[in-house]
Amino acid sequence: MKTVVVRNIQRADADACRILAGLGVSTSHEALGRSGLMKPYMRPIWPGAAICGPAVTIMAQPGDNWMIHVAIEQCKPGDVLVVGCTADNTDGMFGDLLATSAKARGVQGLIIDAGCRDVATLKEMGFPVWSKAISAKGTVKATLGAVNIPVVCAGVNVTPGDAIVADDDGVVVIPRKLAGEVAAKGQKREADEIAKREKLASGILGLDMYNMRPALEKAGLVYVDNPEDA
Amino acid sequence: MKTVVVRNIQRADADACRILAGLGVSTSHEALGRSGLMKPYMRPIWPGAAICGPAVTIMAQPGDNWMIHVAIEQCKPGDVLVVGCTADNTDGMFGDLLATSAKARGVQGLIIDAGCRDVATLKEMGFPVWSKAISAKGTVKATLGAVNIPVVCAGVNVTPGDAIVADDDGVVVIPRKLAGEVAAKGQKREADEIAKREKLASGILGLDMYNMRPALEKAGLVYVDNPEDA
Amino acid sequence: MKTVVVRNIQRADADACRILAGLGVSTSHEALGRSGLMKPYMRPIWPGAAICGPAVTIMAQPGDNWMIHVAIEQCKPGDVLVVGCTADNTDGMFGDLLATSAKARGVQGLIIDAGCRDVATLKEMGFPVWSKAISAKGTVKATLGAVNIPVVCAGVNVTPGDAIVADDDGVVVIPRKLAGEVAAKGQKREADEIAKREKLASGILGLDMYNMRPALEKAGLVYVDNPEDA
Amino acid sequence: MKTVVVRNIQRADADACRILAGLGVSTSHEALGRSGLMKPYMRPIWPGAAICGPAVTIMAQPGDNWMIHVAIEQCKPGDVLVVGCTADNTDGMFGDLLATSAKARGVQGLIIDAGCRDVATLKEMGFPVWSKAISAKGTVKATLGAVNIPVVCAGVNVTPGDAIVADDDGVVVIPRKLAGEVAAKGQKREADEIAKREKLASGILGLDMYNMRPALEKAGLVYVDNPEDA
Amino acid sequence: MKTVVVRNIQRADADACRILAGLGVSTSHEALGRSGLMKPYMRPIWPGAAICGPAVTIMAQPGDNWMIHVAIEQCKPGDVLVVGCTADNTDGMFGDLLATSAKARGVQGLIIDAGCRDVATLKEMGFPVWSKAISAKGTVKATLGAVNIPVVCAGVNVTPGDAIVADDDGVVVIPRKLAGEVAAKGQKREADEIAKREKLASGILGLDMYNMRPALEKAGLVYVDNPEDA
Amino acid sequence: MKTVVVRNIQRADADACRILAGLGVSTSHEALGRSGLMKPYMRPIWPGAAICGPAVTIMAQPGDNWMIHVAIEQCKPGDVLVVGCTADNTDGMFGDLLATSAKARGVQGLIIDAGCRDVATLKEMGFPVWSKAISAKGTVKATLGAVNIPVVCAGVNVTPGDAIVADDDGVVVIPRKLAGEVAAKGQKREADEIAKREKLASGILGLDMYNMRPALEKAGLVYVDNPEDA
Repeated sequence: MKTVVVRNIQRADADACRILAGLGVSTSHEALGRSGLMKPYMRPIWPGAAICGPAVTIMAQPGDNWMIHVAIEQCKPGDVLVVGCTADNTDGMFGDLLATSAKARGVQGLIIDAGCRDVATLKEMGFPVWSKAISAKGTVKATLGAVNIPVVCAGVNVTPGDAIVADDDGVVVIPRKLAGEVAAKGQKREADEIAKREKLASGILGLDMYNMRPALEKAGLVYVDNPEDA
Repeated sequence: MKTVVVRNIQRADADACRILAGLGVSTSHEALGRSGLMKPYMRPIWPGAAICGPAVTIMAQPGDNWMIHVAIEQCKPGDVLVVGCTADNTDGMFGDLLATSAKARGVQGLIIDAGCRDVATLKEMGFPVWSKAISAKGTVKATLGAVNIPVVCAGVNVTPGDAIVADDDGVVVIPRKLAGEVAAKGQKREADEIAKREKLASGILGLDMYNMRPALEKAGLVYVDNPEDA
Repeated sequence: MKTVVVRNIQRADADACRILAGLGVSTSHEALGRSGLMKPYMRPIWPGAAICGPAVTIMAQPGDNWMIHVAIEQCKPGDVLVVGCTADNTDGMFGDLLATSAKARGVQGLIIDAGCRDVATLKEMGFPVWSKAISAKGTVKATLGAVNIPVVCAGVNVTPGDAIVADDDGVVVIPRKLAGEVAAKGQKREADEIAKREKLASGILGLDMYNMRPALEKAGLVYVDNPEDA
Repeated sequence: MKTVVVRNIQRADADACRILAGLGVSTSHEALGRSGLMKPYMRPIWPGAAICGPAVTIMAQPGDNWMIHVAIEQCKPGDVLVVGCTADNTDGMFGDLLATSAKARGVQGLIIDAGCRDVATLKEMGFPVWSKAISAKGTVKATLGAVNIPVVCAGVNVTPGDAIVADDDGVVVIPRKLAGEVAAKGQKREADEIAKREKLASGILGLDMYNMRPALEKAGLVYVDNPEDA
Repeated sequence: MKTVVVRNIQRADADACRILAGLGVSTSHEALGRSGLMKPYMRPIWPGAAICGPAVTIMAQPGDNWMIHVAIEQCKPGDVLVVGCTADNTDGMFGDLLATSAKARGVQGLIIDAGCRDVATLKEMGFPVWSKAISAKGTVKATLGAVNIPVVCAGVNVTPGDAIVADDDGVVVIPRKLAGEVAAKGQKREADEIAKREKLASGILGLDMYNMRPALEKAGLVYVDNPEDA
Repeated sequence: MKTVVVRNIQRADADACRILAGLGVSTSHEALGRSGLMKPYMRPIWPGAAICGPAVTIMAQPGDNWMIHVAIEQCKPGDVLVVGCTADNTDGMFGDLLATSAKARGVQGLIIDAGCRDVATLKEMGFPVWSKAISAKGTVKATLGAVNIPVVCAGVNVTPGDAIVADDDGVVVIPRKLAGEVAAKGQKREADEIAKREKLASGILGLDMYNMRPALEKAGLVYVDNPEDA
């Protein structure tokens, strides 16, 4: 790993990010073709937040949050910090002081493949974090990592500037150049779903709405009546 | 596995289900003789729901929710959908569209040994789900499974029509024919506990209320005073 | 293991405990020199509680809560029950009846390296529990353990009377005789953090506030501009 | 759970079991239609064993091996002991004394959804065990369970007498009445595979042997040449 | 944590250790009264080793093996190194160079609640290790820990000089002053088991040898004949 | 994800791969600067293999091995197949037929972030596999993935043609263009270690060989004599 900080990265389009935040993780993930989803162990530390912004990426050493300080200087309003680690780790590498600094910089939230602490305070501050663990374990500032290089976070490769969508369903990574296209597809998908939702709410079955019966019959599905207690 | 849909299953008694919902999982599990409890990785996606209803069971292929659509047609008001998988899986096999359809059918809730998505919307809708994971991972509709055959869900064998009790403590399965008997035992148990709770709240010790001291002494329990700093 | 109950243990200083409760887990853990933290799988069953009190310790057999009844008799107002097990276990060894009894005794809360049940009721009662699991699994009262001997709970050795600090960040164990000293250090630390928080909120970077730039440069950190799309 | 011992169970056909042992787990599982497979956490305590025999089932309390003693009396030569637990457990519920007793009775091996101990001795004895864990944790003989009732073991419902196939790939459960049919299908499958294996060994690709190219093209697979370093 | 190295610790009796090594983990654990067993995730990196020796304990920072170098100087022939960590970690903190140094000092083996590497070489050298993970992840030498203070390793508190018994069944910790007594009890236990093993091998059932039938009947166990297919 | 097969990829230098195979995972990982290591859950299905070759990468759908057939056509002698999945999965996506085909093509081995089956046969064939799980679970051939695009496998981003080093310590990924440089650094490192090993074997302590004593003293390490039993 090169111990480097890359400045002036290209960022996913701000309008696309705004749309993707509204669409949410599940719709964005579908619109991207069902890829880019982080592992489901990434959970919000408090429910209800829904954000999307360009990634400022951090490759950190386990138990060392030095690079997060370095990364905050590289942030612009609307950015999302994304932290990968060189080894599995659950230490509390981010707390209320770093959140205060990030918030002052306009950072929308943090995605960290490790632990987070001061979670009651972060909730009060309204600063959202998606993490692998909650842990008070203190960290050091001893070994270099890197900022704004591609990092693997919770099973997904994140390139600096990619659009990060995060809500109660998890976290999905949209490649930077596809953000606009995925946002458009997602909007269309959502519009389609409104109509479907109304039909389903009225009692029409998915079996009929999607015309599944012929395919099910062809695949060999058989209906029988319960013989028990007959 | 037979790729079959069983119609017109026998269902646990509705009155018994109403009582069991009020008693909750822990009391129902005790009243059944401490069996039938799903593994504790099954958690509600939002807290506070407490339901009981007859199981409509689904054996699904991992990452494939075709059979859930098929199952909804077999549901009656008050039913609880129970999904087992042929292999470990955390994909988000159930979301707001399926919930809309299930709700229109009168389904009370879903128990799924896999993932669930659109959890913020499901909470708004008041549709309760107990799942192994929360994940936006999209699923396909490609391979048959079965509806209303016995399925293993989170370590428990569920027969169609069994009474499924679910609340913040987890999920317990009451065999269909025992629902009434277990409900009655549970009510008696609960009545007993009210008296016990009052005694304990007044400061009477469990040691005395349950007359544990002789058994503890017989088992060899010894009391000593702390010698430290003496 | 000796099947013994130790009476009249020495307890961590009450004033120190009051201060530590206010400081919280992360600050207390730092003030102790970053040790004593339980594993992050220990989570509160409901958010928002923050307590500190002397430990009354219990070594329990898996799935057997007999010793918890025995321990409650040894509790004084302000105590915190800490349960370790002789083997991994997730059974619901503590519920609303035991909580009622503990509360009547003035116990502040429970830390258990196993499961807990009746969590909706415990939340209503305002009785906080930190546990490894939530499970309705019933337990027996069959085999002796011990009360007020040193026990390992979630990876930390707890001596009776140690100060147990618990909040949304987890649980930390402060050795009894160090409680006052750690409380004092924690207060100093917290005072320092207020000033830091204000600076960071005003936009001053951690890089500058902590004077990190020279150390980063010495360690070899390099800044480059993004060549992509150039 | 009824605390009952069922005697004189029906057993899967011995000839079918002999064939299934030779076919192994993967082929048997395919021949059954890809169901009945226990979770992959079930691993042999020593490699190389491959068995199949009718299940004598045990529902045990966690950490209590009383029912295994009871079950051994019900065993006939060729049987396989299958132990499920009422709660997650890793205690060493089976060791060299029980193995000696089981071996004297002609039992082929043990499948246990918990722990096993004395593994070096069991290897010397040539007694195979598939378990969730290896643990020396001692167990008690205190609470009743049941013998020869249906039990869930590692995610699969096992009915007494079912054919249990176990080898280095894991454990699969073949319903008793299907053992002969599955054995026949498995033999046919294996015969087919010999021819396939020869073709593949000669360098013929699966793409051609299975005629996959048209389906891949229809599904939209595109071939491109690597532009990198061009 | 005090950053201290304690020299000239008291060690468990060498004769007792020799006996305990022969008895093995399961028998020693029983003779101690079923306590002191490390969690079952601790596994030997190669099978067949069986050792017992006094513990030289190390409290290490995650990913930092500096203190292991410090500890080796404190070792005497026959000692067993025991490493606990201040946070969960799987890094490969021990490899062939440290093993060479430890072996030159007469160290019998290593118990580490973290990772180990160079496992093929360690097997060739005949140096046994019990660890939580195998990982090549490199470590640093940056932060102090301590040597020969009490440490929690895999759920058990280890005091310097305690007798550590390790074999294919796992690792058990015998308090230093109890080593002789436990060895004697274990030998008696083993002698008893020889007679039992012969009886069981001859076909006598545990039910009869242990006279379990009256207790089972009193507990309510019922025998029935299988009605199926009757 | 683009459903694409990239042909004629650039491959890591063959001589460098030969050297890296000899150096092994731990040394290669150090020579790369302690990055590129897959998570430690990736384990060999049989011990003793040690390989290095250029990666042919596969992005597969969970439970679907269609793309592995497609990938084998793209392999050259010496290649290593690397399979990532779009979601967590343990199904047995690779067995003896695919191994026969891969071996006929000269493939050295397989790295799969999912399950593997027929492990006894693969061991007999001498075909090495590193996987997350062993599972007989059958897979389908239904949904497209991709071949020779960058994939995340067990936490590491793998670019087609990267040098994959795998042995009993795990799996490390060396970027294609760095293979020669890392091999050279690794050889130097190994040469240095021979001298160190001899010194340590002769009884010289790491404390002295690495001149650690001044740094330890400066960091504050204190030596005391054991007061116990004094």
